[in-house]
Amino acid sequence: MGFNIVVGQSGGPTAVINSSLAGVYETAKKMGVDKVYGMKFGIEGFLQDSLVDLDSLFTGDMSIELLKRTPSSYLGSCRFKLPELSQDEDTYKIIFSILKKYDIQAMFYIGGNDSMDTIAKLSTYAMTISSPIRFIGVPKTIDNDLMLTDHTPGYGSAAKYIATILKEMICDSTVYNIRSVTVAEIMGRHAGWLAGAASLAAGDDGEGPDIILLPEVPFDPEVFLKRVDDLQHSKSNVIIAASEGVKTKEGVYLCDLVSTAGQLDAFGHKAILSGTSRYLSDLISKNLGCKSRAIEFSTLQRCASHLASRTDISEAYMAGGAAVKAALAGETGKMSALKRLHNHPYLCVSEMVDVHAVANLEKKVPLEWITSDGTHVTKDFVHYARPLIQGELSPMFVNGVPMHMHLH
Amino acid sequence: MGFNIVVGQSGGPTAVINSSLAGVYETAKKMGVDKVYGMKFGIEGFLQDSLVDLDSLFTGDMSIELLKRTPSSYLGSCRFKLPELSQDEDTYKIIFSILKKYDIQAMFYIGGNDSMDTIAKLSTYAMTISSPIRFIGVPKTIDNDLMLTDHTPGYGSAAKYIATILKEMICDSTVYNIRSVTVAEIMGRHAGWLAGAASLAAGDDGEGPDIILLPEVPFDPEVFLKRVDDLQHSKSNVIIAASEGVKTKEGVYLCDLVSTAGQLDAFGHKAILSGTSRYLSDLISKNLGCKSRAIEFSTLQRCASHLASRTDISEAYMAGGAAVKAALAGETGKMSALKRLHNHPYLCVSEMVDVHAVANLEKKVPLEWITSDGTHVTKDFVHYARPLIQGELSPMFVNGVPMHMHLH
Repeated sequence: MGFNIVVGQSGGPTAVINSSLAGVYETAKKMGVDKVYGMKFGIEGFLQDSLVDLDSLFTGDMSIELLKRTPSSYLGSCRFKLPELSQDEDTYKIIFSILKKYDIQAMFYIGGNDSMDTIAKLSTYAMTISSPIRFIGVPKTIDNDLMLTDHTPGYGSAAKYIATILKEMICDSTVYNIRSVTVAEIMGRHAGWLAGAASLAAGDDGEGPDIILLPEVPFDPEVFLKRVDDLQHSKSNVIIAASEGVKTKEGVYLCDLVSTAGQLDAFGHKAILSGTSRYLSDLISKNLGCKSRAIEFSTLQRCASHLASRTDISEAYMAGGAAVKAALAGETGKMSALKRLHNHPYLCVSEMVDVHAVANLEKKVPLEWITSDGTHVTKDFVHYARPLIQGELSPMFVNGVPMHMHLH
Repeated sequence: MGFNIVVGQSGGPTAVINSSLAGVYETAKKMGVDKVYGMKFGIEGFLQDSLVDLDSLFTGDMSIELLKRTPSSYLGSCRFKLPELSQDEDTYKIIFSILKKYDIQAMFYIGGNDSMDTIAKLSTYAMTISSPIRFIGVPKTIDNDLMLTDHTPGYGSAAKYIATILKEMICDSTVYNIRSVTVAEIMGRHAGWLAGAASLAAGDDGEGPDIILLPEVPFDPEVFLKRVDDLQHSKSNVIIAASEGVKTKEGVYLCDLVSTAGQLDAFGHKAILSGTSRYLSDLISKNLGCKSRAIEFSTLQRCASHLASRTDISEAYMAGGAAVKAALAGETGKMSALKRLHNHPYLCVSEMVDVHAVANLEKKVPLEWITSDGTHVTKDFVHYARPLIQGELSPMFVNGVPMHMHLH
């Protein structure tokens, strides 16, 4: 009897989610797995029996290299939350009937908190019905907010993108001989990992952002305005990196102070946060009377594969490969985590952790990595994040633009 | 007696304006020029006697290579319009007294329409007072709207950036199994060269944008909505690239239909155009009832040196060098234009044109390069623009981010 597997991708895009797919696929084939199926549009597509045979799509080394350079989910994604077993066992039965139909012995799901919730539920259900099918999660999120892993694949590339374009934006902001404040708005609902990455823009050639605001610290307008005012006395152009998730002491998002638009997505998350930078920019103009502008870094943060970190791409691949090895060794209900062995030189390996301890939790930036006045990160943050943005993987430029790979 | 020159940068940033500076500097030094001065913050700084000695700043080949990879104006910029001679001769006298003070025989000004106006006025004044000082303009603008040059340095890199991130955004937009429309807002006040560059996202791996809206064609909501509706019947995710400068038949900017903010800059230009994509996205949601989102590409379009076109960098350098050669040969009142000799293979040389014929005029996209229904560009546009985005110049990554060079 053959050993067949299925792999899916879920949640928001990253620049390296396809590297994990490549890691799952190539490792599986090298270890003798027969069929590697992909689920189109995650578990939602799987429930509709939407499977593709990856052997027919990944036709050589070149396709794997293109896959690694293609941002977002090659297989498509979904934001589908598996119901509680107690409320709806039918969904579970459908999933296991499809697994049986294709003679699948292991499922891999590349995603964030919610995807780990899916893996946790399915592995628990498998035990309940004494099914030998294994379920392993592969972490993926630019937000870097998963527990039990040093960091998440996807974060390093988003951090490299943020630091790089912030550096370029600083060149742009300092061009005129005018006092000005620039506020860059960076992704991150509840954790400041991405905003903190703005600190990586600092180097011998420039100071990077003067202020970094993270969701971990309640926003204090007085402290903030005083800091901006102080900075303006020593430099012409003040640069601020602000997380979209910054909140007041009362827990109100700054963006909600300018806009009331706030739909919830399928997971009950606030789907659209926008306006934090505009709020801060207006606050500065009104109170300090200087030129101020807001720039949203927008979705490019999660899909700029042309600036992906090679470290991130390699680790995403490694996490996918380790998941396959674990499943073949009989493990289930696990997530393929990253464990940093040492920082000088940087060395990171994979390890399996209990997916139930990961699902639905969020890891925030430790408060000791944030300066006491809450307006910047410490050197410890930089030491943590700097190794994750090292190295590049050149896009394959065809006709002047990077080539991608698409599933049609 | 030595031959000294001064070079300045003016107007909005581009990714390659510093390559032109490198071209001026290196060519001047190779041709025996004694002192090469730089004006800080353009002619405005020059009027305040803010000059720097570039020999002390460009200390070797490495600094020139870093300069080429640094976006925005290394010397700083300004938006200063030289007064008419008839109204204020004093300003001219100050400029010529500073030129005399430093024994400067030639001035080079790297910029767009308004900078060419400065060169035109100064060269005319020099003739009036029988001064032998030469004034040469070096074109620079991402907008590609200068007359008498095949294209402008700065355009190719902006076009490469737009096409690349649009490709990545398409990966991001097509990830869920949901019908959606994405509207990307692209710079370009009055000309659609940048919006048209979105067409360069098309290739063997994808179709690129489905609709491109340019300022050259009055916006017709009925034609537009019908086209979006038609597209939605044949594909799940519709991608629209819209110029920020799109106007109604009545000449009203679409962005002004959502926002009344519209300050004028020192040149009487509309300084802030924003909201075109939001307007279009809302229009689609309201009328077609489908999910629609707006993304502004923002200032990164003009300062993303990490995605600069090598062709653009080389031509910017060439234009700077040619300007110096022309001045040394006694020319004045000229702009160093680019002339395309042939397209297959692409070959472009520099030539001197009359700067008076360039100043204050705008070159628009020819209507025959826009499809008859006004919703896309033709193959002729692509044949024109594709060669300009060819090739890359790898950033020098230090600690995971590109290294830049700053004047302090």
